[in-house]
Amino acid sequence: MKISIIGSGNIGWHLGLALENHHHQIYEVFSRQKSKASNLASMLYQATVKTDLDFSESDAELFILAVSDDAMSEVCQQIILPENAILAHTSGSKSLEDLQKLMLVHHDLPVKCGVFYPLMTFSIGKKLDLKTVPFCIEASDEETEQKLVDIAQELSNTVYLISSDERKVLHVAAVFACNFTNHLLALAKEITDSEDLEFDLLKPIIRETFKKALAVENPADVQTGPAIRNDQTIINRHLDYLKEDENLVEIYEVMTESIQHHQQSF
Amino acid sequence: MKISIIGSGNIGWHLGLALENHHHQIYEVFSRQKSKASNLASMLYQATVKTDLDFSESDAELFILAVSDDAMSEVCQQIILPENAILAHTSGSKSLEDLQKLMLVHHDLPVKCGVFYPLMTFSIGKKLDLKTVPFCIEASDEETEQKLVDIAQELSNTVYLISSDERKVLHVAAVFACNFTNHLLALAKEITDSEDLEFDLLKPIIRETFKKALAVENPADVQTGPAIRNDQTIINRHLDYLKEDENLVEIYEVMTESIQHHQQSF
Repeated sequence: MKISIIGSGNIGWHLGLALENHHHQIYEVFSRQKSKASNLASMLYQATVKTDLDFSESDAELFILAVSDDAMSEVCQQIILPENAILAHTSGSKSLEDLQKLMLVHHDLPVKCGVFYPLMTFSIGKKLDLKTVPFCIEASDEETEQKLVDIAQELSNTVYLISSDERKVLHVAAVFACNFTNHLLALAKEITDSEDLEFDLLKPIIRETFKKALAVENPADVQTGPAIRNDQTIINRHLDYLKEDENLVEIYEVMTESIQHHQQSF
Repeated sequence: MKISIIGSGNIGWHLGLALENHHHQIYEVFSRQKSKASNLASMLYQATVKTDLDFSESDAELFILAVSDDAMSEVCQQIILPENAILAHTSGSKSLEDLQKLMLVHHDLPVKCGVFYPLMTFSIGKKLDLKTVPFCIEASDEETEQKLVDIAQELSNTVYLISSDERKVLHVAAVFACNFTNHLLALAKEITDSEDLEFDLLKPIIRETFKKALAVENPADVQTGPAIRNDQTIINRHLDYLKEDENLVEIYEVMTESIQHHQQSF
């Protein structure tokens, strides 16, 4: 299939390379920063760099909208698609309806819209096997849905039909499981740094904690630490140590309370 | 060396087997629950099950006190050690001084005390290679310290001399990096469960998040998500979704604020 990619950030970069590996032709690459579009296009065999969003003469059948949520509205306002093309965004938080509405506000005719969302954190330049990445697919009609599912199944072993509401829930859960956990690791490093201790000392126990949490049925089953043991002596000693830093005290208290609260409800 | 183990929980179990593998003789095993002591002793070649804490006739040189913090005081009250024996606890949160004081309160003569703390989360029955586990060693005198370091270095490649104050800091940091993160994973599962979504969908992104956080210099450098992007639209949408659950709202708000606060201070 001829596919054009709008946006050349992390997701555009990863999808572009992976789709080409699976014998699709990346036809055009657009980015607001031309240099970024050129960088990505230079890694692809036949891609043209587009400097505007008029695709009326394009031969591409699928346009992957891999831009930030904030940029989506502006792109939808300016984009002109060829007849019968599919426009699919890659956002975890925008609904299918958001995209359809944006396209209808700025254009007279409805377009075939879809969602092509890889549930993964990407870093530009660091190749990642997409085979294990869950793809969440949704579309405005069955034909479009089938096309997007087919393409996703070439890239990944785990392709799901996920509604916009479900995708929102996954996104909220991922914020807890990924963004907030990453921040806790950053805070742990801040604590060890402040006493000139090596953060590396904690890495083996962090690795084992995660391995264990993902190996069991429910991470709650392997909860350890002073909160779950209701060890108030240690909790108080920790809070006393942290007392100079309001922010750390607040997180310690809220998380401890939540662990104890959940323990009771089991 | 002849070594006796007091306590047959996770740590006693792992240390007992590992020490025997390195040609030490586990001489005696004591547990308040005799059946647990018997279980551990049955996995060791020559260990005797002890049903009381009178070790005055024991040939062991080192007594590893692998009991819960709460039980430590009672054990110290009752224990009778042979002359010149070393008593080392395995706790992350008790200081060396705590142990020395307990022994002096209940006995006339000071004993050689130490800390032999493996910085790891253990599960009974699940063997784990101790080679990568950091051991934190501390002792009342240099000779004892050297003996404990020597034994730890047989078990592990990473042996550190860590003071009680430093160990407390490591323990606080581990609560953030392990206990609290594990709880966030449990909450993420709760969120997906509540909408009949598979938690498995999130596992690849969780694995990648942790791999990345531990591979970079500072996890803060790879922070992603709506909080660090100051994406208030998505933050509000998430809070609106969570609004029925006070506890989740509170965690979302506290963590989001903390991420944004730290971003500013860099």
